[in-house]
Amino acid sequence: MINNQYSIFETELNVRPDDIDMFNHVHNSKYLDYVLAARYEQMDKFYGMSWQSFTEQGFGWVVAKVTISFKRPLKLGDELIVRTGILEMNEKGSHVQFEIVNKKTGKVASDGVFEYVMIDLQTQRSCKVTEEMISAYSI
Amino acid sequence: MINNQYSIFETELNVRPDDIDMFNHVHNSKYLDYVLAARYEQMDKFYGMSWQSFTEQGFGWVVAKVTISFKRPLKLGDELIVRTGILEMNEKGSHVQFEIVNKKTGKVASDGVFEYVMIDLQTQRSCKVTEEMISAYSI
Amino acid sequence: MINNQYSIFETELNVRPDDIDMFNHVHNSKYLDYVLAARYEQMDKFYGMSWQSFTEQGFGWVVAKVTISFKRPLKLGDELIVRTGILEMNEKGSHVQFEIVNKKTGKVASDGVFEYVMIDLQTQRSCKVTEEMISAYSI
Amino acid sequence: MINNQYSIFETELNVRPDDIDMFNHVHNSKYLDYVLAARYEQMDKFYGMSWQSFTEQGFGWVVAKVTISFKRPLKLGDELIVRTGILEMNEKGSHVQFEIVNKKTGKVASDGVFEYVMIDLQTQRSCKVTEEMISAYSI
Repeated sequence: MINNQYSIFETELNVRPDDIDMFNHVHNSKYLDYVLAARYEQMDKFYGMSWQSFTEQGFGWVVAKVTISFKRPLKLGDELIVRTGILEMNEKGSHVQFEIVNKKTGKVASDGVFEYVMIDLQTQRSCKVTEEMISAYSI
Repeated sequence: MINNQYSIFETELNVRPDDIDMFNHVHNSKYLDYVLAARYEQMDKFYGMSWQSFTEQGFGWVVAKVTISFKRPLKLGDELIVRTGILEMNEKGSHVQFEIVNKKTGKVASDGVFEYVMIDLQTQRSCKVTEEMISAYSI
Repeated sequence: MINNQYSIFETELNVRPDDIDMFNHVHNSKYLDYVLAARYEQMDKFYGMSWQSFTEQGFGWVVAKVTISFKRPLKLGDELIVRTGILEMNEKGSHVQFEIVNKKTGKVASDGVFEYVMIDLQTQRSCKVTEEMISAYSI
Repeated sequence: MINNQYSIFETELNVRPDDIDMFNHVHNSKYLDYVLAARYEQMDKFYGMSWQSFTEQGFGWVVAKVTISFKRPLKLGDELIVRTGILEMNEKGSHVQFEIVNKKTGKVASDGVFEYVMIDLQTQRSCKVTEEMISAYSI
């Protein structure tokens, strides 16, 4: 992962049998769900400003762009470490880098970047990230 | 399917590649999604009281119980006919029978019954189905 | 759950954000995936005859019938306990009861029964469960 | 989409209710599944060398990299057009551009590029695309 001034956090996940596809690998689109699950946990556990607290304030985070490389297949029974870290965070949104590592081999299964924007849950339109939010996530 | 006084309607669906599981069959839980997709279409097309119109009135239909038999596997490339028909409809909810037929072979892949209750989207609690709704669905 | 001579085992799972549906509940079909994930873990951990060991011998377990009641919704952030136990196991297959409990409230979110048959992965047809397998699972 | 020498093909899809997420939008990872569904259909219908024919020869196509932009949300009831076209095709694999268009509005909901490699289903390793395959897809 790219080394910069922001912290990198880890979440552990297990492959769920329903994630497996016709090739007996984790289906490609499920990797996006793993990154979401990791960010969801990390927002609460490490940043102290949870997904739920955004929801209660009337905000949600949606994905504007994903770049993802699939390097090695994940299989039934595999345990994963999902590492994520902010690359950029400003009033327009955030860029989050990630890598999904196979716990047994230590090798990178997938990596990439998610670009998020914040939306107002009422209007469903993107809106400005506040200074307080940027500050909470600038660790 | 059980023959009774209510109409039976059909929806055509294609297996989506992401529905395929480690056995190269449609994954068992996706059958429930096929029934939902069929009911969603049929509510609009045949009953004239769409899912959307319930949403606009502040109501939603949720599943209280499912009984489903898996008789023959569905595979990548298969085209399906999903037949559904009401068995019972009253102020407490509705019982809907279904069968999923493989279009090529004409054989039943799966059948069973969904029991639905209506919820108030605000309170998220079950509520009474109105006479007007029962009437619209009693065809 | 029904009390009988077979052991009941527990698996802990977290709701994944991609499991959430338009009602902001865990989508109904995902409950089947939670039961599968629990059985997958328990086959290895408690019965000592893992899913993987069946695969290596050329066998797989597929669902023939499911009866499932949805009693209370599960939501984003919920942690679950999935309890399962064999009701019947013979050469034709097994019947497995389950309940999914919300860890925070201790209340049952869903319960029911899965009926499994064993298939030969080559022929994709159901086949007899051996005495050795029945014995391993009769605990 | 980028204009180049390769053909662009269209597939029509409907949003399935189980694709909807907590924001009442199509969940982001499902867009990847829509592109896969479109390519699957187009391989058979337009290129005359179907997914199935690759499988029968012992080959499969897996995704090596995805770049995807989410421009406008898709919702329950939406009908889509998925346009895809090859950007590059050689012995190492293919690059396929796509755009997902909301049929009602004609506006682009999402676009991007999938990079595919071909694998040998036995070894699960990437392998060379043959001249015959490249030729079939160079339309």
